[in-house]
Amino acid sequence: MTSPAEALRTLLGPRGFLAAPDDLERYETGARYDRGRAAFVARPATTQEVSAVVAHCVAHGVRLVPQSGNTGLVSGSTPDESGTQGILSLERLTEPFAPDIANRSIVAGAGLRLSQLNERLAPHGLTLPIDLAADPMVGGMVATNTGGARFIRYGDVRRHLLGLEVVLPDAQGTVLNLLNPLRKNNTGLDLKQLFVGAGGACGIITKAAFELRRLPQQSATALLVPRDDDAAIELLLAFEERIGDQLAAFEGISGEALALTLKHQPRLRNPFAARATPDYCILVEFERAWAPRDGEIGIDDFLEQVLSDIWSLSGTPLADAILGRGADFWALRHAITESLAAEGRVIAFDLSFARGDVMKFRRAIAAILAERYPDIRVCDFGHLGDGGIHFNLVAPPGSDVARDSAPLRALVFEQTVETFNGSFSAEHGIGRVNQGFYERYVDADQRRIAGAIQSLLSPGRFGSVDLS
Amino acid sequence: MTSPAEALRTLLGPRGFLAAPDDLERYETGARYDRGRAAFVARPATTQEVSAVVAHCVAHGVRLVPQSGNTGLVSGSTPDESGTQGILSLERLTEPFAPDIANRSIVAGAGLRLSQLNERLAPHGLTLPIDLAADPMVGGMVATNTGGARFIRYGDVRRHLLGLEVVLPDAQGTVLNLLNPLRKNNTGLDLKQLFVGAGGACGIITKAAFELRRLPQQSATALLVPRDDDAAIELLLAFEERIGDQLAAFEGISGEALALTLKHQPRLRNPFAARATPDYCILVEFERAWAPRDGEIGIDDFLEQVLSDIWSLSGTPLADAILGRGADFWALRHAITESLAAEGRVIAFDLSFARGDVMKFRRAIAAILAERYPDIRVCDFGHLGDGGIHFNLVAPPGSDVARDSAPLRALVFEQTVETFNGSFSAEHGIGRVNQGFYERYVDADQRRIAGAIQSLLSPGRFGSVDLS
Repeated sequence: MTSPAEALRTLLGPRGFLAAPDDLERYETGARYDRGRAAFVARPATTQEVSAVVAHCVAHGVRLVPQSGNTGLVSGSTPDESGTQGILSLERLTEPFAPDIANRSIVAGAGLRLSQLNERLAPHGLTLPIDLAADPMVGGMVATNTGGARFIRYGDVRRHLLGLEVVLPDAQGTVLNLLNPLRKNNTGLDLKQLFVGAGGACGIITKAAFELRRLPQQSATALLVPRDDDAAIELLLAFEERIGDQLAAFEGISGEALALTLKHQPRLRNPFAARATPDYCILVEFERAWAPRDGEIGIDDFLEQVLSDIWSLSGTPLADAILGRGADFWALRHAITESLAAEGRVIAFDLSFARGDVMKFRRAIAAILAERYPDIRVCDFGHLGDGGIHFNLVAPPGSDVARDSAPLRALVFEQTVETFNGSFSAEHGIGRVNQGFYERYVDADQRRIAGAIQSLLSPGRFGSVDLS
Repeated sequence: MTSPAEALRTLLGPRGFLAAPDDLERYETGARYDRGRAAFVARPATTQEVSAVVAHCVAHGVRLVPQSGNTGLVSGSTPDESGTQGILSLERLTEPFAPDIANRSIVAGAGLRLSQLNERLAPHGLTLPIDLAADPMVGGMVATNTGGARFIRYGDVRRHLLGLEVVLPDAQGTVLNLLNPLRKNNTGLDLKQLFVGAGGACGIITKAAFELRRLPQQSATALLVPRDDDAAIELLLAFEERIGDQLAAFEGISGEALALTLKHQPRLRNPFAARATPDYCILVEFERAWAPRDGEIGIDDFLEQVLSDIWSLSGTPLADAILGRGADFWALRHAITESLAAEGRVIAFDLSFARGDVMKFRRAIAAILAERYPDIRVCDFGHLGDGGIHFNLVAPPGSDVARDSAPLRALVFEQTVETFNGSFSAEHGIGRVNQGFYERYVDADQRRIAGAIQSLLSPGRFGSVDLS
């Protein structure tokens, strides 16, 4: 008799099946923190192979964890410590790449990276406008419902998802073909929604159809200093009133995050070199999907005009504004994460709030942390425009909290959810990291329903989370 | 012992419970075609009353059909002929109206009409940008996932839905509070998605939270004649390339629909009075969410420039263009439906396709209809920009097909779904009208899953459709 693993090797061939410890390591290690142990890695190259692997594993009681780009932060795509789970990697599912120009849409394999997709779409003047520091694959983007830094203009992956092909973790490895890329199609339950943001708990995404957007043709960027905390949201509303959906990004950066980034990345230009580093600043970006026209105000001048309008408001929310190259400002913004890691132990949170509550939460939690964790530096940054915030804390190496951050995590989540009615996971999902908080903060009726749906779709109980 | 109905009267009071035939009539009659018979109408005024009514009816085996604005076309909100079903009207659930300006969102009662919502939002410069000829209520808009004429710029109701409160048709009348208006919140299954476009099959919507958009500040409209059928989609792409998401509407109107509208609405100005009526024309609209600025090209001039660019393309897709008042063009567009009804028996279809297939479908089906139904006039119009099409046919009064349109409906759906991979219901849902086509055209695995979810959420089997 052959073991389940040997049968998979036969099924998938040597390129499709890995079991040597050296080969497994990179799949067992997450983008941050986590490290599990895998029984094997299956790398099917077609939907039919995914289905066969799934049916085989369900029949033999082997649990699979789907893994896409493995760029998430919540241990959603790595196995646990038991060494009994297999990893089902989507990385070879790179077909098709099938843009439909007339429909402004694409059908894409789950193993394509966002960067690959957008490089190949650029010649058509089209893009999947999800803007991230990481470079995930299509499958994981759907499974986490990624949003990113330009959410305010474009929305999240769900907003762009027209269709999906999914393999269910059931005895048959049922393939659900929901790929039809129609924009309007209301003929019963929209089943594809069950797999968006579910982190692989309900099925394995093999292909996705997305609506695409026209590539931006013009952009302009500035770095703003709000008058004070309350002025940040006033500024946001002032921009929205004056430019509507040309507003593509409205990203807050705390003074601490800025200072540590400049400290650890000396090659980056300090935009505040000639002035005091502010307590908080905001990267604002305008985008237009059309080319400049003769006789039209250029987008840079338009941005200057809008800033001048806002500056001249009585009680203006603006204390300072720096115009400059977008690339410089974004380089700063995107260097924050690694800079914080160079300073100490980063305890990262991906929270979200109603937009008016972001700065209120910051103020409240900063006061609590100053008292209970005086060593910790609050180095948050994130998406003020959509209420998302990377609430990242830096603890000194070797400190108590660096060794065990669990009580701190519980405290931050308590303030987030119980006091400010926010979300403990804006766009990374649950994963093994947040399982306990899911059980604590998601209402019992909702978990009962979600668990029943998970049981219905995934009797094999694949994935890293239990939704019940 | 009191009957179930009498107990409801006690529960809801005289304003909340109707059973006299005269009172029932307007609830039993749909916006078009259908007429059922109701045992009673329950008009709860609060979520708690909805829950109590639901629990009572589930306990007594009384099936309820939720009814919102009752503007749908598929018998989704009216009872069947049995006289045993009750109607649960959402019309008194008009609270709250709670905009959150900082969050650019609102929590709204399911009984608020779209027009009421937008009239009260206008002073804030905000809108729920779903553009319809009908005036539905919030609950029904969510239950049908309404899209409308400006979908290409704004998307559908699902795109704007941040939260939902739903009463489940179960023994407890469970209230699911999913109202938190966060833009980014990926903490398990997004259960609210199960109620969007489900036509009331899974639960009764009592409140919804929407993301709002800034009201447009400028618009410009033109009526275009494409060179030929194929040129329609070329024109669409040419506009998208030049103006991106300023494109707010791209509405096709067949020559037949235009001719009958001008015939039956003599007060409307004929934009083609000085020339031949075209076989097909397209209403195109630009919108900007910002006010005009000194030094900026006005939106009318911008539209003219873009038309001139497209006109000068070699092999231009444009045969003619008429600039004019948007209100005049939209008056024509919105008068089509009633004009067709004045001419004969309208057999209406709400179809959708990948955008490149709309004109191909029109050509194919027109040829088939000309042969098999020579009396019928094809008077389609609709949303070329999103692939939706109101494929409306007019049959002479008293003709065979006017008496029994079932074979014709089957023929059109067959071409739509089997030949062109389109949808038999773009934005009206299933309803009793399309139940048979749902069973025919939705894959067995999908129906098995949808049916199981319906049983899970709605053991009382409320609503007008069976998803299994």
